[in-house]
Amino acid sequence: MTKPRLILDQDDVLADTHGKLADIVVREFGTGLAREEFYKMSFHKILSSDHHQRLYKIIQEPGFFRDIPLVPNAQETVYELSKKYEIFVATAAMEFPNSFREKYDWLKEHFDFIPWSNIVFCGDKSILNGNYLVDDMPRNLKTFTGKGLLFNAPHNLEERAYERVMNWGEIANHLL
Amino acid sequence: MTKPRLILDQDDVLADTHGKLADIVVREFGTGLAREEFYKMSFHKILSSDHHQRLYKIIQEPGFFRDIPLVPNAQETVYELSKKYEIFVATAAMEFPNSFREKYDWLKEHFDFIPWSNIVFCGDKSILNGNYLVDDMPRNLKTFTGKGLLFNAPHNLEERAYERVMNWGEIANHLL
Repeated sequence: MTKPRLILDQDDVLADTHGKLADIVVREFGTGLAREEFYKMSFHKILSSDHHQRLYKIIQEPGFFRDIPLVPNAQETVYELSKKYEIFVATAAMEFPNSFREKYDWLKEHFDFIPWSNIVFCGDKSILNGNYLVDDMPRNLKTFTGKGLLFNAPHNLEERAYERVMNWGEIANHLL
Repeated sequence: MTKPRLILDQDDVLADTHGKLADIVVREFGTGLAREEFYKMSFHKILSSDHHQRLYKIIQEPGFFRDIPLVPNAQETVYELSKKYEIFVATAAMEFPNSFREKYDWLKEHFDFIPWSNIVFCGDKSILNGNYLVDDMPRNLKTFTGKGLLFNAPHNLEERAYERVMNWGEIANHLL
């Protein structure tokens, strides 16, 4: 029997991209705000336009995507899920062409049980065909024809239209 | 009204990858075969295993995908099609991680009217969701849920299961 297909976003679902950015902001931007403040709302709301541009530049620097920490329990849970689901990773890498190789190498390092054939670099995620999608961006869930799960993130706290999962433990509860 | 979505493969549909390889083989491999012989059957059938491995290495060299010639009339026809269809390009770039940036830059150079959001680097193309797919690989058409068109290539001459298009003029006749 064919396994159902589960598509996972990379940034802020597998990789703690927001956490890396929060560390940089706290360490280098001198906002005077404690790290936890950056978990209460999006960078868009909390940072000045200058700081926001500076952050956008940092994201585009070579190396940024290569050493992002794992989201807690992502690795183990995805491995367990891979026994019951056909796992794909789909990431909006096209916005940052410098990130292609780094994102690929990061996945190879941390999720080497996911074959290269199941990695997708894209922009508009309405191109994706699958049964389940875990993503932190409501716009990606909006166009998905399967079942979407919204991975909790500071930039989606006000979203009410999709089922929210707070962490990988909750994803395991839903899907295992 | 939403435009129907037309997904185009890159190699051997937009880019004349086979033609570049045939040039290299004729120039460097000393097979004694004329260029036209490489249009009668696949490299797999015509080349020795040693030559085949050598070709595979050439494909992986930095720069290989950056200067591939355009397939005749691809540029103009895709531009015309973009008025009636939502165009995506989907290429199995994951097999060759060195190719990511080159394939992206090639598309930017020759198809700059296709936004980055509509470029997909993938492996298994069963992930793609759209209305039409033009591809030279029967395995990609097999899993596609929309209408597939097989772009004629030396490696698919024996395929009978899909509607074949010989060139971009025929695609225009079908879709415009």
